[in-house]
Amino acid sequence: MIIQLKTNADEQIIAGLIARLEATPATVIRIKNHLAIPEVKTTELSAAEAGVVAEVIEKTPAAVLGSRLFQPEDTIIKLPHSVIGGKGNFTMMAGPCSVESEEHVRKMAKVAKAGGATLLRGGAYKPRTSPYSFQGLGEDGLKYLREAADENGMDVITEVMDETHVDLIAKYTDVFQIGARNMQNFSLLKAVGKTNVPVALKRGLAGTVDDLLNASEYIAAGGNHQIMLLERGIRTFDNKYTRNTFDLAAVPVLQKLSHYPVLVDPSHAVGEWDLVTPMAHAGVASGASGMIVEIHDDPEHAFSDGPQALKPDTYLKMTEQVYAIRQLMDSWE
Amino acid sequence: MIIQLKTNADEQIIAGLIARLEATPATVIRIKNHLAIPEVKTTELSAAEAGVVAEVIEKTPAAVLGSRLFQPEDTIIKLPHSVIGGKGNFTMMAGPCSVESEEHVRKMAKVAKAGGATLLRGGAYKPRTSPYSFQGLGEDGLKYLREAADENGMDVITEVMDETHVDLIAKYTDVFQIGARNMQNFSLLKAVGKTNVPVALKRGLAGTVDDLLNASEYIAAGGNHQIMLLERGIRTFDNKYTRNTFDLAAVPVLQKLSHYPVLVDPSHAVGEWDLVTPMAHAGVASGASGMIVEIHDDPEHAFSDGPQALKPDTYLKMTEQVYAIRQLMDSWE
Amino acid sequence: MIIQLKTNADEQIIAGLIARLEATPATVIRIKNHLAIPEVKTTELSAAEAGVVAEVIEKTPAAVLGSRLFQPEDTIIKLPHSVIGGKGNFTMMAGPCSVESEEHVRKMAKVAKAGGATLLRGGAYKPRTSPYSFQGLGEDGLKYLREAADENGMDVITEVMDETHVDLIAKYTDVFQIGARNMQNFSLLKAVGKTNVPVALKRGLAGTVDDLLNASEYIAAGGNHQIMLLERGIRTFDNKYTRNTFDLAAVPVLQKLSHYPVLVDPSHAVGEWDLVTPMAHAGVASGASGMIVEIHDDPEHAFSDGPQALKPDTYLKMTEQVYAIRQLMDSWE
Amino acid sequence: MIIQLKTNADEQIIAGLIARLEATPATVIRIKNHLAIPEVKTTELSAAEAGVVAEVIEKTPAAVLGSRLFQPEDTIIKLPHSVIGGKGNFTMMAGPCSVESEEHVRKMAKVAKAGGATLLRGGAYKPRTSPYSFQGLGEDGLKYLREAADENGMDVITEVMDETHVDLIAKYTDVFQIGARNMQNFSLLKAVGKTNVPVALKRGLAGTVDDLLNASEYIAAGGNHQIMLLERGIRTFDNKYTRNTFDLAAVPVLQKLSHYPVLVDPSHAVGEWDLVTPMAHAGVASGASGMIVEIHDDPEHAFSDGPQALKPDTYLKMTEQVYAIRQLMDSWE
Repeated sequence: MIIQLKTNADEQIIAGLIARLEATPATVIRIKNHLAIPEVKTTELSAAEAGVVAEVIEKTPAAVLGSRLFQPEDTIIKLPHSVIGGKGNFTMMAGPCSVESEEHVRKMAKVAKAGGATLLRGGAYKPRTSPYSFQGLGEDGLKYLREAADENGMDVITEVMDETHVDLIAKYTDVFQIGARNMQNFSLLKAVGKTNVPVALKRGLAGTVDDLLNASEYIAAGGNHQIMLLERGIRTFDNKYTRNTFDLAAVPVLQKLSHYPVLVDPSHAVGEWDLVTPMAHAGVASGASGMIVEIHDDPEHAFSDGPQALKPDTYLKMTEQVYAIRQLMDSWE
Repeated sequence: MIIQLKTNADEQIIAGLIARLEATPATVIRIKNHLAIPEVKTTELSAAEAGVVAEVIEKTPAAVLGSRLFQPEDTIIKLPHSVIGGKGNFTMMAGPCSVESEEHVRKMAKVAKAGGATLLRGGAYKPRTSPYSFQGLGEDGLKYLREAADENGMDVITEVMDETHVDLIAKYTDVFQIGARNMQNFSLLKAVGKTNVPVALKRGLAGTVDDLLNASEYIAAGGNHQIMLLERGIRTFDNKYTRNTFDLAAVPVLQKLSHYPVLVDPSHAVGEWDLVTPMAHAGVASGASGMIVEIHDDPEHAFSDGPQALKPDTYLKMTEQVYAIRQLMDSWE
Repeated sequence: MIIQLKTNADEQIIAGLIARLEATPATVIRIKNHLAIPEVKTTELSAAEAGVVAEVIEKTPAAVLGSRLFQPEDTIIKLPHSVIGGKGNFTMMAGPCSVESEEHVRKMAKVAKAGGATLLRGGAYKPRTSPYSFQGLGEDGLKYLREAADENGMDVITEVMDETHVDLIAKYTDVFQIGARNMQNFSLLKAVGKTNVPVALKRGLAGTVDDLLNASEYIAAGGNHQIMLLERGIRTFDNKYTRNTFDLAAVPVLQKLSHYPVLVDPSHAVGEWDLVTPMAHAGVASGASGMIVEIHDDPEHAFSDGPQALKPDTYLKMTEQVYAIRQLMDSWE
Repeated sequence: MIIQLKTNADEQIIAGLIARLEATPATVIRIKNHLAIPEVKTTELSAAEAGVVAEVIEKTPAAVLGSRLFQPEDTIIKLPHSVIGGKGNFTMMAGPCSVESEEHVRKMAKVAKAGGATLLRGGAYKPRTSPYSFQGLGEDGLKYLREAADENGMDVITEVMDETHVDLIAKYTDVFQIGARNMQNFSLLKAVGKTNVPVALKRGLAGTVDDLLNASEYIAAGGNHQIMLLERGIRTFDNKYTRNTFDLAAVPVLQKLSHYPVLVDPSHAVGEWDLVTPMAHAGVASGASGMIVEIHDDPEHAFSDGPQALKPDTYLKMTEQVYAIRQLMDSWE
C-alpha cells in the first residue's frame, strides 16, 4: 500500500499515522510525500488521518526505495575514474574472469584500459559449480587487482561471496559484485547494504525482474543506495549453443521501474566468445548504461570461463563499435 | 553421418555407395561433394568405397540443406519489391496484427511504406489461444491485404495456418508466414515445402535452435529453399513485464549454423509497445537481416494484440533509428 | 464475463439479452442458467435485463464448456471396451510408439492386453523432429493397428496430425490423439471438434494449464465434448537425465478446473525406460484417470522412441503395481 | 577422469601417480580402488603407472563422493529419533513454515508428531523475497523449536542462511536445512561441510540435477557425508496455479546417481494447500525416502507461506495415506 500525503499536511498527524501503522506491525517507509507499507494492502483511516492523505494506492512496487515512483531521476554512481548511470554515460568494465597472477592481471588491465574500460574486473573469490574447480587466489588476488587498476587509473569491481569477506574486500574494491548465484543470499545483501561501497547486483539464473528488484531493496534498506543492476542471462530450455538466454528486454523494463543504472554482461549471457560482440552491440542498443566483459590473452589456458573471453584484438574492435552505437544513440536525444 | 567425397571420384562407385546406404534404409542427401545421412552415425566402407571417401564425420547438423557446411554463402530471397538476406540488406516488414477492414489495412500500408517497409504484414487467418477470440476475415482479408500492398508497391507476408489453405493463400501472398504455434506442424511444413512461395518460419515458444532448423528442413526437403527464420521470443519463467523472452543471441547462432536469412519480431517478443523500440534497436544491432513489426493507429481498439502495436509516429521514428544503426554497422565491414 | 441467470426467469428477456450481447459482437455461450461471454468483461444491464440476472462475474475461465463451474460432474467417455473418467475408473493404454508391422503390433497388442490395457496405442503418422526420421506406415499402419486391437478386444487410440487425415483416421480409431506439437494447431482442433470421435489432447511442450484448457475448448466449441487431457511433460531448463519435466501437479489442477478426464503419459515425460515405472506409480498416485505407456519387445531396434519403451516383463510388473496403488486409493473414498 | 586401479597394485606407484597428477595442478580423490580427478579428462601414463591402472574413464560424475559409482550402498543418516535413507525407511518431517511463538510451535509439534513426523521443522531465520517481510524470530525461535521437539521426542530441522550462524544453529538443530536460494551459496556449503551435523540440501529454483549434486559435493568435500537431497519444485513457465513445478522424476534420477537419501517437499513445490495431498501421494509413490511438509492451525494468519500449509486434520489424513502407499510399495520388494 502506498499512501500519498497532501502537501503541507500536519506533520503531527502524519507521525501518528506512521506510528499506528508500524504498531500493526508493519514496515513504513517514508519518501518525501509518500508512505510505502509493502506488506499491507489496505487500512481504515480516521477522520484526522484522512485529512492528510491525498490518495491510497493498493499495490506497492517490488522495490520501494529503488522505484521510479518515488525517485524519478536516475541514480548516478561516481567513482574516482568512472560515472555510472545517468543520461549519456556509458561505462565499460573489463578484465579477466579470475585474477590469475600479478603479471597477468596487469597485462589484462592495460588491454581493458586501451578499450576504454574505466573499471577493472577480476575474481579473487570464485563461485564455481564444482568444489574441485579453481576457487580463486583470495586476498593475494585482491592485491594484484588493486595494483593493476591503480597503475592504469582504473576503478576495481570484484565479487564478494559471503558476508565474512565484506570488510576485507572493501579494502581493495570500488564496487562489490554480487554474483547471480548469490542474488538471493539475503545475509550477504544485508551485509553490503551496511557499507558505503557501491554494489553491482547480478540477476539470478531464475531471478524474475521483481526478484532482482526485491533483492536490490535488501541493500537499499540497509542504507546503501549506490546500486547497479546487471542482466547476465537467465536459465531457459535452450542452452546448447549459448550458456544462458540473454534477456535484453529486461534492460528497458528495469529502467522503467527503477532509477538504478542497468548494465549488461554479454560474456556470461552467451558463454561463447564469438557471440559476445553481436550481443555487446545489442546490449548497448538496448539502452544499457554500461557493460562488463571478460578478456583474456590466452583463453584456452584461462583458469576459468575461457570459452567466453575475448582476445585483446576482438575486445578493442568490439568496444570501438559499442561506443559508436552509443554515440549514434546520443545524437537522437 | 556426413561422407565427404574426394574430388573427381568415380561416380559409379559413389552411386553404388548411395544405393547401399539407401537400402539400409536411410535417407541420403547429396550436396555437391558431400553425402549427408542424418539417421546414421557410422558405416563400414568397402575398399572401393573407401577409395572415393575423403572423410567421414559422425555428426550431421540439425538441418542438412540449411547448413553452412554445405552452402557457405547466404541464401538471398528476391521478391518484386524486396531483397531478403545477404550482406548489407535489411528488410522491414510492418502492418497490423489482423487485417481489420479494407480501409484500415490501406491506411496502415501507407504508414508501413512511409517507414521504409517493403513487405506488408496482416493476418487474415488468426491463430488465437481462445476459440472465442477474433479468428480473422479469411479470404476477404487476403484480398484487402493484397490490394493495399499493390497500391503501395509492397510485397505481402501473411500467415498460413493449415495445409488446406496453402493454395488459396498462395494466390495472394509473396511470403507464407508459419506462426510459432505451428513451427512443428509437420504437415503444414511439408505442404509449403512443395510450393515455390518463400516461407518465413517463426521459432516456437518452446523451440530450440535445433528444433527450428529441423523444422526448416521439412520445408527444404520438399524442394522449397526460400526460407527465412524468425526469432520472436521464447517462453520462460519471466513473463510479468514481457510476453516472452527475446532471445537475440539466437540471431548470430542461427547465422553461424545456417545460410537462411534471420529476422526478428520485437513486437511478439515483448508484447508491450513501449519496449518495442529498444528491442528493435537491439535486434538490428544483433545483426538480423530484417524485422517484422506490428503497427496500429488505434491500438486500444485493435482486433488483436493491441498492446504491442506501435502507433504511426513511434513506428516512423523507430525505423529511422534502426536504419541508422544498420548504416553505422555497414560502415564497419 | 459470466452472467448467472435467475431460476425461472423470463426466457424472452433472456433471449433479448443474448441477442444484444451477440450484436456487440461477442460469443455468448448458454449453459443451463449461465451465460458465458468470454471476450467481454462488463456490460450495462437494462432494468428488464437486471430482473433476470442473479449475478455477474467478471472473469471467464479458460475453457467455458470444459469448466467445472458449469458442469460439476465428471465427463465419462464410453468406448466399446473402455470407460474413461469418473470416480473409480482407471484406464490403461499401451502399445508401441510406431506401428512397425502387422506382426509386431499384434504381438504388442497381446502384451498390452495382458497388462490390463483396454486401448491399444500405435502411431501410423508420426510427428518427427527431423524430416529424415521414420514418418510412419500411413493407412497400412492404421489397418494393422485396428486388426490387432480387434483381435484382443481392445479400443484404438492413434495420432491425427492434420485435418486432411481426420476422416481417414476416424475409420480406424476409437480415440484421436492430438500430439504435444499440435496442441495449438487450431485448424486440426476445429476439425476433430466436428467429429463424434473422442479426443485425447496432449499438453504442449510450452503449454500452460490455461493454454491446454483453451485448446480443449476449440474441440468442445465444435460440438465434440468427449475430450480427455494428457499431461506428458513440459520443456524446462533441466533435460539432461529426462527428456521433459513431468508436471504431475497439473493433474489435480486440471481436475479442479475441468470435468474432463485427466491422464498421464510417463513414457514421453521422462524418455528413459527405467524412470517410467516410478513415474507411473507417481502418476496414478496423483489421481490421474488413466495412463498411456509405450512398450516394445526390442527397444534397441524400435523405429522410434526406443529408449523410453518398457519391455513386456517390466510393463506387466508396472501395471500390476499401478492397479494396486489405485485400489488402495479407492479404499479411502 | 576416473582411474580404476588394479587390485593389489603397488601402493608406491599409486602414490607417485597421485602426486604427479596433483602437481598438474589437479584435485585427486581416492575412494578405495578409484582415483577421481574431476577437472582432468586425460593423462599419459608411464609404463609403471600403466601397470597399476585397470581402466581410465574420461567422464567424472558431478559429485564424486556422492556417486553410486564409488559407494553403491545407500547413505543412512541416524538421528536420536529418526533414520533417514535406506531401504524401507520413510521419514516424515513437519511443522510450521516459521516459528511464530513458543506456544504455537509446541502446538504444531504435537500435531506433527501425531501424524508420524519424527522431525519438527520451523524457520527461525527466514529467507524472504522482500526485506519488509517477516524475517524470523532468530535465536528465540531456535529455542522454542528445540523445546517443542524435545517435549515430543522429535528431532529438529531448521534453516541456516549464512555461515556466521552455523555454530549458533548447530547448538539447537539435528539437521541443517539449506534453502533453495542458497543451493549455490558455496561459502555456506563449505561451512556446514566442516561440521558433523547432517544437512538437508534443497534444490535451487534453477538448479539442474548436476548442480544439486555438485552443491552436495561442496559439503562432502569438507568431510561431512551426512547429506540428504530435497526436491522442492523448480521454476518454469507455468506458475499460475502452482508456485513451482514439482519435478518428481528427479527422485529416481538422483537415487540412480547418488547414494544420499532423496526427500520431497510438496508444500513448496505447489504452494497451494489443496494440491499438497495429491502431490504427497505422488511423492511417496515416486520412491522418495521421506517428506517435509508445512502445517498450520490457522493458515490465514500464518507469518509466512500460509496458502500452502495443511491444517491439522488434512495433515493427519494425508500422512496416514502416505504411509499406506509406502507400506504397499514395501510389499513389492
